[in-house]
Amino acid sequence: MKRFTSVHDLLNGYGLSQAITDALAYAESPWKDECLGKRKTVGLLFMNPSLRTRMSTQKAASLLGAETIVLNAGSDSWTLETRDGVIMNGSTTEHIKEAAAVMGAYCDILGLRTFAGLTDRTYDYQETVLEKFIQHSGVPVISLESATRHPLQSFADLVTIEQHKTTQRPKVVLSWAPHPKALPQAVANSFTEWMKHADVELVVTHPEGYDLDPSFVEGVHVTNDQDAALKGAHFVYAKNWSAVEPYGQILSQDTSWTVSTKKMALTDNAKFMHCLPVRRNMIVTDEVIDSTNSIVIPQAANRVVSAQTVLAYMLKGLA
Amino acid sequence: MKRFTSVHDLLNGYGLSQAITDALAYAESPWKDECLGKRKTVGLLFMNPSLRTRMSTQKAASLLGAETIVLNAGSDSWTLETRDGVIMNGSTTEHIKEAAAVMGAYCDILGLRTFAGLTDRTYDYQETVLEKFIQHSGVPVISLESATRHPLQSFADLVTIEQHKTTQRPKVVLSWAPHPKALPQAVANSFTEWMKHADVELVVTHPEGYDLDPSFVEGVHVTNDQDAALKGAHFVYAKNWSAVEPYGQILSQDTSWTVSTKKMALTDNAKFMHCLPVRRNMIVTDEVIDSTNSIVIPQAANRVVSAQTVLAYMLKGLA
Amino acid sequence: MKRFTSVHDLLNGYGLSQAITDALAYAESPWKDECLGKRKTVGLLFMNPSLRTRMSTQKAASLLGAETIVLNAGSDSWTLETRDGVIMNGSTTEHIKEAAAVMGAYCDILGLRTFAGLTDRTYDYQETVLEKFIQHSGVPVISLESATRHPLQSFADLVTIEQHKTTQRPKVVLSWAPHPKALPQAVANSFTEWMKHADVELVVTHPEGYDLDPSFVEGVHVTNDQDAALKGAHFVYAKNWSAVEPYGQILSQDTSWTVSTKKMALTDNAKFMHCLPVRRNMIVTDEVIDSTNSIVIPQAANRVVSAQTVLAYMLKGLA
Repeated sequence: MKRFTSVHDLLNGYGLSQAITDALAYAESPWKDECLGKRKTVGLLFMNPSLRTRMSTQKAASLLGAETIVLNAGSDSWTLETRDGVIMNGSTTEHIKEAAAVMGAYCDILGLRTFAGLTDRTYDYQETVLEKFIQHSGVPVISLESATRHPLQSFADLVTIEQHKTTQRPKVVLSWAPHPKALPQAVANSFTEWMKHADVELVVTHPEGYDLDPSFVEGVHVTNDQDAALKGAHFVYAKNWSAVEPYGQILSQDTSWTVSTKKMALTDNAKFMHCLPVRRNMIVTDEVIDSTNSIVIPQAANRVVSAQTVLAYMLKGLA
Repeated sequence: MKRFTSVHDLLNGYGLSQAITDALAYAESPWKDECLGKRKTVGLLFMNPSLRTRMSTQKAASLLGAETIVLNAGSDSWTLETRDGVIMNGSTTEHIKEAAAVMGAYCDILGLRTFAGLTDRTYDYQETVLEKFIQHSGVPVISLESATRHPLQSFADLVTIEQHKTTQRPKVVLSWAPHPKALPQAVANSFTEWMKHADVELVVTHPEGYDLDPSFVEGVHVTNDQDAALKGAHFVYAKNWSAVEPYGQILSQDTSWTVSTKKMALTDNAKFMHCLPVRRNMIVTDEVIDSTNSIVIPQAANRVVSAQTVLAYMLKGLA
Repeated sequence: MKRFTSVHDLLNGYGLSQAITDALAYAESPWKDECLGKRKTVGLLFMNPSLRTRMSTQKAASLLGAETIVLNAGSDSWTLETRDGVIMNGSTTEHIKEAAAVMGAYCDILGLRTFAGLTDRTYDYQETVLEKFIQHSGVPVISLESATRHPLQSFADLVTIEQHKTTQRPKVVLSWAPHPKALPQAVANSFTEWMKHADVELVVTHPEGYDLDPSFVEGVHVTNDQDAALKGAHFVYAKNWSAVEPYGQILSQDTSWTVSTKKMALTDNAKFMHCLPVRRNMIVTDEVIDSTNSIVIPQAANRVVSAQTVLAYMLKGLA
């Protein structure tokens, strides 16, 4: 596997079913491939802060016996220019072309974390930074969250649903929830994209105006009626995102969308999911996230499992 | 051992005498347990800068064959909310409940570094941040310095005194010394607490108004006469702290308290100690810290030894 | 080898010819000494951001089986005082004497990255920070770039020229090029110093006023005529530096000195080199750096090779 940036990279290769099987096997026996990454170096470049991604990917590499080198762009390293053809007489000190190629020279696999700028929709949705990085690095690249997707999170989400489901085809509801800051659509996009290919009944719900990009929700059941959506749900996945149109704007902070005990009562004893970090009592009440139905911690723990599975596929491709 | 936050965690377990014996053994043979931490991951979360703690704990883990993952809260990672029940619509991005639980899911042992805020005495002395972290992480936790104690430092101090003492029961003087900034009481509290349980004659000296919290100095010989305190001392431990009442205030920067050659002449050829980093010519003169009686570097080196001993106890508890 | 701060540390020891041979051997077989650094710890202290140096040195240590601990002074750690005898009642929190000695207590080899302050020429050219660090650390020290030299870069440059030369004694041109910020002379000084001892014909070219320090260019062919310098060149090494006199000033941002296709046409099909990070379309045009004659990426890759060779020499000295 040469790149892991969306579910399509699995669909085009090992297949989603095989990937789930392999991930569950790592969840059971984390050390079973502890020599696979011997003499291999995984470089992780963060353009944004991160707790889960940073730690889980390091842990996953370690479980496979690979070395990790972590770099924070901007503090540890230089500020990166991503535009082509520009005269670099301003504040950016290195072009992503060189940064990617040099990191590719030092490492066998690279991971890149970047966020949506939320100002230029076309730029963000073309995944300019991630694609340039892939183009110039010369080695397999894992998205550690990009402008429009968070595939390691979505893969972990799918594994979590697989582990906790009690019916063959559970009803999974992705619900928008309020947040004080403008957030990217990446997690919501990515979750939707993965669930479309999984054996689940997916419903997406959000206030008017928060429609996700058509390329992600085409064919998906979407409603502005949160209560209706939650009815009979087996999994409730809460997440905030900013509007796609006007791009990156906050249209509402309506706390009637906060996932509360009353909302959860509408479901079929649903499990509560969130990718974390979560704003308590904005996205979800203390009562719900602290309840036994909350699986946010096992969900976060599965970030190791998804990263390990993807790293293993890439390491096998290097041999 | 499930937690290491004060001397009591040793007193309630292995005992101080055994701990010193084990620490001295690691000082002699650092690699003797190099497989004890195989397949184990130690996560270190820093809410404040650190040189000794960061490096010595990484080194200690490495000597035991364990992996380390280091995270700087706020720069690498998210800013943490520590209050319960709050509506998180402000600047903090993740609750310590989730951060601790997720780190506990990725790591076998966690270390946490936090400082006193120095504004709310009750909050600081309840060790709110450390205790919440312990409560929610689900794994053994080491204090890498907390609001009111610095136990790995005090353990290293005790080992250093043991290595350098020339009489069975040395006189050990903890002396306040001036500093341009308001510092926590943690090192002074913790040193006092450990020395009370060690085979030493402890005297604490400081200007009027700098009394330490009663829970730490109860039963300890305390005097405002630095010269009298220093008389016949075998070890002089200099340290600044801010006032307990009014909490966190600087009452004096009186440089007549700086440890100088003249002050050291009052002692019985005492060794000079400090936890570092030290403000030269405020806490101690160049002449004293650069003299052969200064043992600040071996003292800092023993931070590896104390961390290794505590990590080893925890690793044994995991098996 | 007890220190690696300039070409002289190789000339006084293994010799330049042997060093090149050893470096080329590591380039061929990176893992051939993978046990040499067993149980050894390399500490890296960065006072400035870095991508190549940080990653390549970590990678080199890893190839030799050594542990690495990385510390960013100022963010991870404390701000350092470098002056002697000062009363530390200001903003610096730790003296370099203690920082160096403590790091030396924890690590077997240390690397230090610092930059020229560009305000006090004497202070910078005495290499005050680096020399104090060496003096107080008690262990072998590698310069990861200092105020006036960048020896791991120059060593990598020499290896790169060795790998790409097509004539026995190639013509190598170091050319000043424009940059929006005042940069140190370190890379230019160091490159000149290494090339003087290599089997190459060296020419240095820069606008009037940009003369390098006499101690570096004594006996070197220097010209203000860039076109004449480039004639028949086999390697063009572009680099910006600020003036030596008045110290640290920008005298020109003349983009007629930018290395362009037209400039490269004057050469004998020269390879283009730069230490990176590079300001595109200031130092060099996109067309040149993106051409097949650009060897900036293999040059950066050789940073692993030079670091590995130097670390191996030091590790052998420890045994």
